[in-house]
Amino acid sequence: MNERQNPDTRQDSAVTVIGLGPMGQAMTRTLLADGHPVTVWNRTAGRADGVVADGATLAATPREAVEASDLIILSLTDYPAMYDILDSATGSLAGRTLVNLSSDTPDRSREASTWAAGHDATFLTGGVMAPAPMVGTEASYIYYSGPEDVMNRHLAALTPLGTPKYLGEDPGLAQMMYQAHLAVFLTTLSGLMHATAMLGNAGMKAQEALPELLALTDSIGDMLRAGEGNPGVALDAGEHPGDLSTVTMMGATSDHIVETSASLGLDLALPSAVQAHYRRAIEDGNGGDNWTRIIDGIRAPR
Amino acid sequence: MNERQNPDTRQDSAVTVIGLGPMGQAMTRTLLADGHPVTVWNRTAGRADGVVADGATLAATPREAVEASDLIILSLTDYPAMYDILDSATGSLAGRTLVNLSSDTPDRSREASTWAAGHDATFLTGGVMAPAPMVGTEASYIYYSGPEDVMNRHLAALTPLGTPKYLGEDPGLAQMMYQAHLAVFLTTLSGLMHATAMLGNAGMKAQEALPELLALTDSIGDMLRAGEGNPGVALDAGEHPGDLSTVTMMGATSDHIVETSASLGLDLALPSAVQAHYRRAIEDGNGGDNWTRIIDGIRAPR
Ligand SMILES: NC(=O)c1ccc[n+]([C@@H]2O[C@H](COP(=O)([O-])OP(=O)(O)OC[C@H]3O[C@@H](n4cnc5c(N)ncnc54)[C@H](OP(=O)(O)O)[C@@H]3O)[C@@H](O)[C@H]2O)c1
Ligand SMILES: NC(=O)c1ccc[n+]([C@@H]2O[C@H](COP(=O)([O-])OP(=O)(O)OC[C@H]3O[C@@H](n4cnc5c(N)ncnc54)[C@H](OP(=O)(O)O)[C@@H]3O)[C@@H](O)[C@H]2O)c1
Repeated sequence: MNERQNPDTRQDSAVTVIGLGPMGQAMTRTLLADGHPVTVWNRTAGRADGVVADGATLAATPREAVEASDLIILSLTDYPAMYDILDSATGSLAGRTLVNLSSDTPDRSREASTWAAGHDATFLTGGVMAPAPMVGTEASYIYYSGPEDVMNRHLAALTPLGTPKYLGEDPGLAQMMYQAHLAVFLTTLSGLMHATAMLGNAGMKAQEALPELLALTDSIGDMLRAGEGNPGVALDAGEHPGDLSTVTMMGATSDHIVETSASLGLDLALPSAVQAHYRRAIEDGNGGDNWTRIIDGIRAPR
Repeated sequence: MNERQNPDTRQDSAVTVIGLGPMGQAMTRTLLADGHPVTVWNRTAGRADGVVADGATLAATPREAVEASDLIILSLTDYPAMYDILDSATGSLAGRTLVNLSSDTPDRSREASTWAAGHDATFLTGGVMAPAPMVGTEASYIYYSGPEDVMNRHLAALTPLGTPKYLGEDPGLAQMMYQAHLAVFLTTLSGLMHATAMLGNAGMKAQEALPELLALTDSIGDMLRAGEGNPGVALDAGEHPGDLSTVTMMGATSDHIVETSASLGLDLALPSAVQAHYRRAIEDGNGGDNWTRIIDGIRAPR
C-alpha cells in the first residue's frame, strides 16, 4: 500500500502502528514527522481519523496492516489484545519484526516472543518511559529487550520515539524494568491523590495542593542522593546505617499519617501498606536502622 | 547560663533545642553557625557530645534547658515525647515560645497548643521539609502554623533552618501539610523499595536500580505538568478528561505489577492498595477517565 501512496519512499522505512490510544497516536505522529510512511490499525476505526488527517494510512484489516511494513509496533492495553488482533494475521508475520510496547508481565512477554518465533517473526518487547505528550521529545526513553541484531536493525526507526535503552536478550527484561518503574510511578500518583484528599479536608484546593506536593516529588531524588550518595551501595551490602533517619522515626510518621487519614474518613489501604513496611522492620528488631531496611519485609513477606 | 558563657551575646538571641536526633543535631549546628547561643537537652545525654564539642551548652535538666532561652525548639519522634520531657518544667514555661517541629497528628498539635497556653507559653507547630543533611541549605523549607505575631517575633532565628512557610493560625495546619507531604514521600520510598526488590529478582543490584528509578521520580513532576499543566485545576472542577491516559490503561498496568510481584513472592499490600484505587474507579464506571479520578475512592472509601 505504502509504495503506491508514497512512490518515492523506500519500502524499508515503512512502519505499522497497531493500537491508537494516546500512546499509539503520539508514536504515529512522531514517525510521520520523521518521514516514515505509517500504516495504522485500531479496533475502533474512528480513533484513526486524526492520524490519517496527518498522513497515516488506515489499513482495513490487521492483516493488511501487518503486510504494509516489516516493522510493526504494537501499543495496546496489554498482551492479550495483541493475540485478539493478530490471530487473523499470523500467516503474514513471517520475516517481520513485532515491537510490542504494551504493558504486561515479563512472563507474558516471554510467551509472546515464543509465539512470534512460531510464526517466523522476530520480537522485541519494550516499555515507554514517557507520557504520550512527551513521546518524540528529549525526555522520552524506551527500555527494550530481545535479540540484539533485531534491535540494531530497527534502531534508526525507533530512536525518534525516545532514546532506546537496550537491556539484553531475555524478552522479559524490558517488561520487568517497565513494571518496576511503573510501580514507583503509580505508587507516587496514588500517594499524591491521597495527600490531595488530606489537604482538601483542610480546605485546600487541589490546584494549590498539587504544585506544593509536586515540588516535593521533584526533590525526592536529590534528598536521597544528598543523604547517602547512591543509597543502593549500602543496601547491596546489607547495610542500613541509621545515622540520618531511622525506621522508628519514619514509622512513627507513618502512624501519624494513618491516624490523620482515619480521622478524615479517607481510604486507609495505601497508608496502611506503608505503615506495615515500618512495623515489620521494627518487629524484626531493626528500628534503629535506616528506612531502606524495609526492603527485607518486601522481599520476604510473612 | 548562656550570658555567663557568652558574655557579649544578647540574651534574646539564645535558643534551646530539645531532642538531639539527626534533625535536632542539624538544627543545633545551623543555629550555632548563625551565631546563636544554643542550649540543648536530650533524654540520652551522650547524644549531645558532638554538638557540645561544636559549642552548644548541655543543660542538666529539661527545666534548665527551658530557662536558658525564650525560644525553645523541640525535635522529637512525636508529641507524647514533649510531655514526657516538659512535664517536669511546666513551671518555667510562662512567657516563652515553644516551636514543636516534631511529627504528629493535627489534632495532637492543637491539643499541645492548648496545653502550652495553659502554662502561659505561646506555641508554634511546624514540619521540616528537608532531610537532616539539608537543614540550613537553600533546599530546606519549613511549614509553620500558630499565632502570626509569635511567628514574626522569631522569624530571624528560625529562617536559617529553612525558608519559613507560614500557613495560618490553626496549629493543626502545619502538621496537616507535613503529614500530606510525608504521605507522598513515604509512599514513594516504599514504591522505590518495592521496585528495587522487583529488579533484584531480575539480577539487578540496588546500586544500578535505584539511580534509574530515581531518574523517574525526578521527572514525575514534569510529566504531570506537561500532560495537564496544573492537574489540580480540572480536579477541582470534578473533571477528569481521559484523552492522554485512562484509568483502564493504568489499572491494567497496576494489575501487571501485582501479578509480577506475586510471581516473585514479594509483599503485595502496597501494589494491591494502588490496584484497588483503579479497580474502584472502574467499578464506579469511570474507566475512561483520567487517573486523577481515583481520588473519589480515596475520599469516600466503601
Ligand atoms: N498513555 C500514556 O501516557 C502511556 C505512557 C507509557 C506507556 N503507555 C503504555 O502504552 C500502551 C498503550 O497506552 P494508551 O494510553 O495508548 O492505552 P489505551 O488508551 O488503553 O489504548 C489501548 C489500545 O489498545 C486497544 N485494545 C485494548 N484491548 C484490545 C483488544 N482486546 N483488542 C483490540 N484492541 C484492544 C485499544 O483499542 P480501542 O481504541 O478499540 O479501545 C487501543 O487502541 C499501554 O500498554 C500503556 O501502559 C502509555
Ligand atoms: N531525620 C530527618 O531527616 C527528618 C526530616 C524531617 C523531619 N524530621 C522530623 O523531626 C523529628 C526528629 O527527627 P529525628 O530524625 O531527629 O528523630 P529521632 O532519631 O527519632 O530522634 C528523636 C528524638 O526524640 C527523643 N525522644 C523520643 N521519644 C522520647 C521520649 N518519650 N522522651 C524523651 N525523648 C524522646 C529522642 O531521644 P533519645 O535520643 O533519648 O532516644 C531523640 O532525641 C521527627 O518528628 C521527624 O519526623 C526528621
